[in-house]
Amino acid sequence: MDQLFNKLDELFDEIVEIRRYLHKYPELSFEETETAKYIADFHKNLGHEVREHVGGNGVLAYLKGDKPGPTIALRADFDALPIQEQTDVPFKSTNEGVMHACGHDGHTATLLGLAKALNSMKSEIEGTVLFLHQHAEELPPGGAIAMIEDGCLEGVDVIFGTHLQAQIPLGEIAYRSGPLQAAPDKFDIKIIGKGGHGANPHETKDSIVIGGQLINNLQQIVSRRIDPLESAVVSICNFEAKNPYNVIADTAVMSGTVRTFKEEIRSFIEKEIDRVIEGTCLVSGADYEYTYTRGYPTTVNHKEETEFIAALAPSVPGVETVKETEPIMGGEDFSYYLQNVKGTFFFTGAKNPDTDEAFPHHHPKFDIDERALLTAAKVLGAATLSYAKKEEPLVNTAQ
Amino acid sequence: MDQLFNKLDELFDEIVEIRRYLHKYPELSFEETETAKYIADFHKNLGHEVREHVGGNGVLAYLKGDKPGPTIALRADFDALPIQEQTDVPFKSTNEGVMHACGHDGHTATLLGLAKALNSMKSEIEGTVLFLHQHAEELPPGGAIAMIEDGCLEGVDVIFGTHLQAQIPLGEIAYRSGPLQAAPDKFDIKIIGKGGHGANPHETKDSIVIGGQLINNLQQIVSRRIDPLESAVVSICNFEAKNPYNVIADTAVMSGTVRTFKEEIRSFIEKEIDRVIEGTCLVSGADYEYTYTRGYPTTVNHKEETEFIAALAPSVPGVETVKETEPIMGGEDFSYYLQNVKGTFFFTGAKNPDTDEAFPHHHPKFDIDERALLTAAKVLGAATLSYAKKEEPLVNTAQ
Amino acid sequence: MDQLFNKLDELFDEIVEIRRYLHKYPELSFEETETAKYIADFHKNLGHEVREHVGGNGVLAYLKGDKPGPTIALRADFDALPIQEQTDVPFKSTNEGVMHACGHDGHTATLLGLAKALNSMKSEIEGTVLFLHQHAEELPPGGAIAMIEDGCLEGVDVIFGTHLQAQIPLGEIAYRSGPLQAAPDKFDIKIIGKGGHGANPHETKDSIVIGGQLINNLQQIVSRRIDPLESAVVSICNFEAKNPYNVIADTAVMSGTVRTFKEEIRSFIEKEIDRVIEGTCLVSGADYEYTYTRGYPTTVNHKEETEFIAALAPSVPGVETVKETEPIMGGEDFSYYLQNVKGTFFFTGAKNPDTDEAFPHHHPKFDIDERALLTAAKVLGAATLSYAKKEEPLVNTAQ
Amino acid sequence: MDQLFNKLDELFDEIVEIRRYLHKYPELSFEETETAKYIADFHKNLGHEVREHVGGNGVLAYLKGDKPGPTIALRADFDALPIQEQTDVPFKSTNEGVMHACGHDGHTATLLGLAKALNSMKSEIEGTVLFLHQHAEELPPGGAIAMIEDGCLEGVDVIFGTHLQAQIPLGEIAYRSGPLQAAPDKFDIKIIGKGGHGANPHETKDSIVIGGQLINNLQQIVSRRIDPLESAVVSICNFEAKNPYNVIADTAVMSGTVRTFKEEIRSFIEKEIDRVIEGTCLVSGADYEYTYTRGYPTTVNHKEETEFIAALAPSVPGVETVKETEPIMGGEDFSYYLQNVKGTFFFTGAKNPDTDEAFPHHHPKFDIDERALLTAAKVLGAATLSYAKKEEPLVNTAQ
Repeated sequence: MDQLFNKLDELFDEIVEIRRYLHKYPELSFEETETAKYIADFHKNLGHEVREHVGGNGVLAYLKGDKPGPTIALRADFDALPIQEQTDVPFKSTNEGVMHACGHDGHTATLLGLAKALNSMKSEIEGTVLFLHQHAEELPPGGAIAMIEDGCLEGVDVIFGTHLQAQIPLGEIAYRSGPLQAAPDKFDIKIIGKGGHGANPHETKDSIVIGGQLINNLQQIVSRRIDPLESAVVSICNFEAKNPYNVIADTAVMSGTVRTFKEEIRSFIEKEIDRVIEGTCLVSGADYEYTYTRGYPTTVNHKEETEFIAALAPSVPGVETVKETEPIMGGEDFSYYLQNVKGTFFFTGAKNPDTDEAFPHHHPKFDIDERALLTAAKVLGAATLSYAKKEEPLVNTAQ
Repeated sequence: MDQLFNKLDELFDEIVEIRRYLHKYPELSFEETETAKYIADFHKNLGHEVREHVGGNGVLAYLKGDKPGPTIALRADFDALPIQEQTDVPFKSTNEGVMHACGHDGHTATLLGLAKALNSMKSEIEGTVLFLHQHAEELPPGGAIAMIEDGCLEGVDVIFGTHLQAQIPLGEIAYRSGPLQAAPDKFDIKIIGKGGHGANPHETKDSIVIGGQLINNLQQIVSRRIDPLESAVVSICNFEAKNPYNVIADTAVMSGTVRTFKEEIRSFIEKEIDRVIEGTCLVSGADYEYTYTRGYPTTVNHKEETEFIAALAPSVPGVETVKETEPIMGGEDFSYYLQNVKGTFFFTGAKNPDTDEAFPHHHPKFDIDERALLTAAKVLGAATLSYAKKEEPLVNTAQ
Repeated sequence: MDQLFNKLDELFDEIVEIRRYLHKYPELSFEETETAKYIADFHKNLGHEVREHVGGNGVLAYLKGDKPGPTIALRADFDALPIQEQTDVPFKSTNEGVMHACGHDGHTATLLGLAKALNSMKSEIEGTVLFLHQHAEELPPGGAIAMIEDGCLEGVDVIFGTHLQAQIPLGEIAYRSGPLQAAPDKFDIKIIGKGGHGANPHETKDSIVIGGQLINNLQQIVSRRIDPLESAVVSICNFEAKNPYNVIADTAVMSGTVRTFKEEIRSFIEKEIDRVIEGTCLVSGADYEYTYTRGYPTTVNHKEETEFIAALAPSVPGVETVKETEPIMGGEDFSYYLQNVKGTFFFTGAKNPDTDEAFPHHHPKFDIDERALLTAAKVLGAATLSYAKKEEPLVNTAQ
Repeated sequence: MDQLFNKLDELFDEIVEIRRYLHKYPELSFEETETAKYIADFHKNLGHEVREHVGGNGVLAYLKGDKPGPTIALRADFDALPIQEQTDVPFKSTNEGVMHACGHDGHTATLLGLAKALNSMKSEIEGTVLFLHQHAEELPPGGAIAMIEDGCLEGVDVIFGTHLQAQIPLGEIAYRSGPLQAAPDKFDIKIIGKGGHGANPHETKDSIVIGGQLINNLQQIVSRRIDPLESAVVSICNFEAKNPYNVIADTAVMSGTVRTFKEEIRSFIEKEIDRVIEGTCLVSGADYEYTYTRGYPTTVNHKEETEFIAALAPSVPGVETVKETEPIMGGEDFSYYLQNVKGTFFFTGAKNPDTDEAFPHHHPKFDIDERALLTAAKVLGAATLSYAKKEEPLVNTAQ
């Protein structure tokens, strides 16, 4: 195991370099062709068996160990977000309006570095390591489901994945058995009013005024209609009514996300939004269109694999804290893998300990402490090397 | 005079053709280079002295009558709006997102048709006719002020202009002495919140929620703060917070228009909007930027010239009704000409008598009854031919 | 005429005393029995023929002049408002929650003082003076309509009335021919939600939250749905949802007023409020009750009588300015008298010239400059003495 | 134990009779003098040592068993709520605007019935039973803290209490170790605008419009500012701006409740409400007053005593289900007792199994299934008789 850790320490500069390269050339979900090619080429250079265009832009790379054993999948996602970067880093995005603002560049660099390290240790590996590079995690229906349909889990015994977390301090590994991440749904609303001259509001049905009332009225779903002991989020993230300054808006479009852990609350909110829109549009005699699109299911970690990670993490260099986390409202299509094979998804702290404020994920100034990539690689690598050797006593003390 | 009317009747098909051509190829304010060239070429073909690029894309064309007399300016504007046309007419705009939704195509066709008619009647004309083709009426600071600074009113004794009105029935001429159109101002607001992941609203300052509250709160300026006996409009016409469905908006921008007739109300609203934004942003601890841009002044018609038009209109063929109109909230940079020379601006009815509903100006389905172009040309033409002959008794009975 | 003015000057202290007495003992509309008795006794003491309980608490007192002539009615209202006085005057209301906050105490004192003055001048009076003391002007259906039905206008040739105005400077008389005051309507709304424990909002339909949305949404009627060139007011003046701090409101009741000058706008708003409530309640699945009660009609002054007042006022001592006023949004049931007989209603300035700020009518700190009572009495008295002598030439120059 | 159960069965009719009597004559918090007297008389008739006026209207009654043992306090609260009852029960409240809408009548009847039963079993009782009748649970600062200061817990070893729950089915006992009920705080807001005539909104600062905006804006605290994984409630329960229909509101007062489980969230909301008010008032240039009053602390049950109840409940006749409950947002001043002595507070199901809908606590139609009183008495009685005998093995199997 020390061999792996040393190897990764040697590769750290290269891992950082990869991450910065990816950061500089981000690609939107479902459009990540260049990134996919970069990943595939990397693995080809290592001599790995590579399968490209899996379920879209997905890439699978297989490393066969010299000893027999299980097939262990390690997953990293590689798509970026439609956000205009506002940082001052030298490797700032060169792709206008696109940014790795969620750390997927780091996930991919971690996995590529680990691939290189493990590649040099074939004799130690029992079984097969599948480097599962997934496209389009940010945009439902996501890449996972298509990659699964395209066979990416065939022969896989267990899957592990991690998410770098800018709000968790460097050195911390956070795990949770059972529900870890919420079901992230999407809704789209179109308010159909009646446009006209900005000087004559009485001849129109002002879609922006209706939209303003709707934004306000939607707040009451969480503040008044959901049991305060339950968790739910309704966020309107997009509002567009682009018009000349003197032309009252004919239509306004809005979209947003709903986050829940329970099916009955999910269904309730889906219907409740409809009623709030219906009433609000009635106030002005306007029409509307409303679509609710279910996103990924809740991410539910398997108990045994979660405890396995929790038990091995404390002895990984760089890991200072290992603790159970509360669930989070963000969604993950890692959930689909966990519906099909055993596994667990955990968080790797990436907050620079010298910073007071860390910008949240999806923020134009989002950034991570790159040392977290090394930590993540070591934990995933340790899991890979020890999973076949996993014995009951170890698991039993994992509490 | 009958000669003029007959000549215009003959030219009607050509006037319609011109209007449809212009409608098909609309250009935005300050970008109307092709339209300006078209206009200049038309006048050059008639042998008129032409001055191009006046104050920007403005075009002046001079027709000298055979007899001495005053210089009479006739103004038509020729810019279009940033609106996506939604009509089904065969001459629908071919310029994506740009539309003649306010009738300026008709104004220009009217003036070109009239130029051709008067060109054939030089012997009847006392003085000089200046065809004043103005660009950029829709977008402050507008074309008028720049054309004036560039000398377009030099030597001009009087100016006339008309606006085709889709809400006024075909056959009606509407005039008003004194204030006719409001001062149309523009405001821009930027809400500076804090973005983040749609699943974690508590880590953000949600610019869309703040924007929704602001839209609501701004309604109270007109509903609660302005004397109900006064007229004022505050319209938010544009709201943009374009984001992925799961990224809470960092910023939101809004713009809109304020319409007033009195300076003290104008100043009051300018300040009041600021306070409403300040308070609303304070609710969420957000920052903001606010700019208030004064548009054209109130359009104030001269009494004598208004009465002159009111007196001659009833005897123009096609005119069935001549009446005083209430002021309107829309602005016009014709106001600048009237601050410099005598003149009047009037409305020519262009509502198809067989239609129940006429779409308002600036609406994506806006259209006019093209017969109105003939009426407008005849009234402006009659004014041109008779202005020099204008005698006191005629004016005195103009009530 | 000078005799009258001198007599009134002598009576000024008594007029003030009467006003202060009435101010100290205000009575609500339709409950003004003590005030009515006070008025009737005053006239009985003067030997006037008195008719009590006219259409409720109304009082009529007749003074027959020695010469023949018309019957001239002078009207003063005498009800107070359900407002808790917040002034520090020594004659502050002693009736908890009731206040003369609109000057009716002054109107009545003016008329009683004038009655005493004219009583001493019977030989000068041509015709009959009817002192028409009306109850319940503040609360629709008002006292005027009931008094008319009870015969108060029988034999009356003309009627005059004035309102003391705290916003108009002392010394000013303001008149207007045609529409002077708006139609003041009343609406009542009951939101029927579902109450419950304050800790469990999801089990309720929160009437206060619905009410908050409704208040906001109603603003758009004036700000967005009424032609900005027209005048309209929608004020929610009362909101009650009285509950313990930890019990979510089952119901909330609201009431308010609508002011308009035109029937079509009045009807439009009546319907529009209904739709706004319907949509707002639908947002939360709540029920509602809505009642719209039409108040007094628009107050329309007769041209000839208005010009008569405008012509004589300048020569009345104490009157410094006589000018035409804009219409006002407040209603008046003087409107009913004007539907039946000729007459006019005008404003008498009562703002203390030494005060910067004058509290508006219906404000808990409302007050008047008592010298205005003398001015009002002199103008009404002059009108009474000269109406019979009114000759055509005088009227013709009244512009 | 069977003797106790049989005795209580015999007393059931009397227990119901007591409950209905109390229901008919409810008294508000801190005003429950008649109820206190009724309770004290009841115990005096049984020969119990009674201490009255404890910390206000509190009543303590002591029953000494024949055998030595601990002092076990059983607590019942007896105040009612300022709610107008809307049920049709024959024992409906005769006190206008006051109602036992939270079951405290049932708590008291349960305890009195149990007192009578235990009184007949002195020979079985080891130790002393303290019947702790607490006034004013509904209104902070509540009666518990004053009774404790007045010595009610002196010598007490353990305390038990239960709340009848209309939402939990008859036959169910619900327990929870650790935090059971939220900290219930109170806030009061006064909006200080400027009143005036309903026809002239521009002369006022409309407190009702400001209040409407405030209600809306306060929703965002829970919907946007609190981590969705945490629990918090902000309810505005009272809104009063009582005015004539045509007088714009000078001031509006609001009050409500905040519920939280964690101190940092509690403090955050206290400050956040202030900022929301400050910003909202700034929008209209109004002033305000804001008071935040901390209510009871979180109710935290002791582990051992909770498990004791959970272990014995299944064998009590009438108990069909015993289960752990989620925490609830409602507050309880039982929390103060638990800060001083060991004990637990649990819920007794009181929902009629034949009803589909049960009205929530604090609802004007709230009611309970009276059979729950018998269940509650039996569980509390069983706890009393067996607490001294409590042995470790019993506790150990209480999971």
